Amino acid sequence: MNFIVNGCAGFIGSNIVDKLLELNHQVTGIDNLSTGNIKFLESALKNPNFSFKKIDILNIEELKESYIGGDIVIHLAANADVRSGTDHPRKDLEQNTIATYNVLEAMRANSISKIVFSSTGSVYGESPEIPMREDGPFPIQTSLYGASKLAGEGLIAAYCEGFGFQSWIFRFVSILGKRYTHGHVYDFYRQLKSDPTSLYILGNGKQRKSYLHVDDCIEAILLAVNNAKEKVNIFNLGVDDYCEVNDSIDWICGELQLNPSFEYSGGEKGWIGDNPFIYLDTQRIMKLGWKPKYTIKEGVIKTVQFLKENEWVFEERE
Amino acid sequence: MNFIVNGCAGFIGSNIVDKLLELNHQVTGIDNLSTGNIKFLESALKNPNFSFKKIDILNIEELKESYIGGDIVIHLAANADVRSGTDHPRKDLEQNTIATYNVLEAMRANSISKIVFSSTGSVYGESPEIPMREDGPFPIQTSLYGASKLAGEGLIAAYCEGFGFQSWIFRFVSILGKRYTHGHVYDFYRQLKSDPTSLYILGNGKQRKSYLHVDDCIEAILLAVNNAKEKVNIFNLGVDDYCEVNDSIDWICGELQLNPSFEYSGGEKGWIGDNPFIYLDTQRIMKLGWKPKYTIKEGVIKTVQFLKENEWVFEERE
Repeated sequence: MNFIVNGCAGFIGSNIVDKLLELNHQVTGIDNLSTGNIKFLESALKNPNFSFKKIDILNIEELKESYIGGDIVIHLAANADVRSGTDHPRKDLEQNTIATYNVLEAMRANSISKIVFSSTGSVYGESPEIPMREDGPFPIQTSLYGASKLAGEGLIAAYCEGFGFQSWIFRFVSILGKRYTHGHVYDFYRQLKSDPTSLYILGNGKQRKSYLHVDDCIEAILLAVNNAKEKVNIFNLGVDDYCEVNDSIDWICGELQLNPSFEYSGGEKGWIGDNPFIYLDTQRIMKLGWKPKYTIKEGVIKTVQFLKENEWVFEERE
Repeated sequence: MNFIVNGCAGFIGSNIVDKLLELNHQVTGIDNLSTGNIKFLESALKNPNFSFKKIDILNIEELKESYIGGDIVIHLAANADVRSGTDHPRKDLEQNTIATYNVLEAMRANSISKIVFSSTGSVYGESPEIPMREDGPFPIQTSLYGASKLAGEGLIAAYCEGFGFQSWIFRFVSILGKRYTHGHVYDFYRQLKSDPTSLYILGNGKQRKSYLHVDDCIEAILLAVNNAKEKVNIFNLGVDDYCEVNDSIDWICGELQLNPSFEYSGGEKGWIGDNPFIYLDTQRIMKLGWKPKYTIKEGVIKTVQFLKENEWVFEERE
């Protein structure tokens, strides 16, 4: 199979590229390297089954050309920054919604009809039902990020109906593990690196969130693509558990052997549109035989270990 | 109140403009006249409380300027052609999703925070639950039109959370009545005008659909804007009933005193993405004290009467 991976130099993208190459697939990786990092492709670039194309997905003509010969598209390229959506509302529209439209059109131009899409648990907004089910109550969006991903899901499903596509849509919790470069573990680690004696926390620290290790995430994606046969296959992906931000801070500080003082910005939410309780019902993917290997605590600790061994990821961004 | 009406020369838009002027509001009407018709504004244009601006909403700078001094935006401008979405997928993306983003940004630039949005029952796709409730199961999109409107809803809700907007989102069934210029009554009437002896029907004629008269629709919108106080207010709008396409054909032929032969394209659906059963639960709007004055049959017959008295609407389009 010839896989096309959009966002191949990103956190999840580069991990999936390595996995697909390990399984002897052909992989074409697309990335504009705006947030992706070419270093994450170090091993892939040595593999003759991998070809890398530096393309911005907003350039639809280049994209169409790059898709020639593909069998399936794994679309992970996105603006993944849920927190600062209100600083630049056009970013989510362009990089998530319009970009997804471009991907679908480039697929159509090349008669590729299978797409894997990284959506988000944020599409549930502040659900009245927790844990959130894939077919739970019609949600009301609370973030531009969630809205842009929901728009992407809608477009993909409409292409399935209108153009005979088949899709696998995954609503992720926050993903942890090797090559993790944004999110709360990254932020806390960076703060503690510059001042090990104090930590500033958005919200009251009692926000409840769910997480998943990237290896478990990729395992689930490949299992679903091979076994879920509907026209539109939608799966929540997360550990069947959640923790408080304060728990996670304990684990991070424990692993770093630090004992900082804490300062909280206060309030139930860390930022505008923050969802104070994210916990996804994952029965649907578990019925396919998937079970995560890592607990949330293990995921957080492994992420801290990755950051300790790869402090260059902070320099790159500064 | 200074109302801004996007799509003011359209079917619903021009009716709402007339109603707002009757209620002594100031109205700024925006339309690019691509499908809207300036003749529908004949009476409005004579009213000193009305000003018309020929602007394309995709031109965000012109739009921002035109919104100066507005208190609330009624956003009805859209590509309303659900049937031929797959002929030009970019159209729904641009005219419904990106246009709605532009409207929200033009509002933000002018500190306008109230928006009324015409969404559609098509966002429910083929719901497992009928009649469809506003908070029924998380839907899977089946048309590019529905997907683009869902994306618009999501953007609006995210602006409510992120920028303190307040919104009234209406999921319409098909609207009937004065100035109706597209849909099945229009199509059947046009066919019978050119050949009164035969009628070609998409699908098997057994599709079940719900309708609403435009006067009842506008009544509901104004009632909700005045009485629904949530941040995001979502209402289904339709008659609490449905009919088969074949029933509607009987009423149309009866009113025209014609007895044509029927030819069916066949199949459950009239077109790709057609929803063979649309019937919305309208308890939420009814709890505000709204009740439609016209039945579906009355709506269909009134529409035929409008077309009989205004056959110029066919010439305009041919």
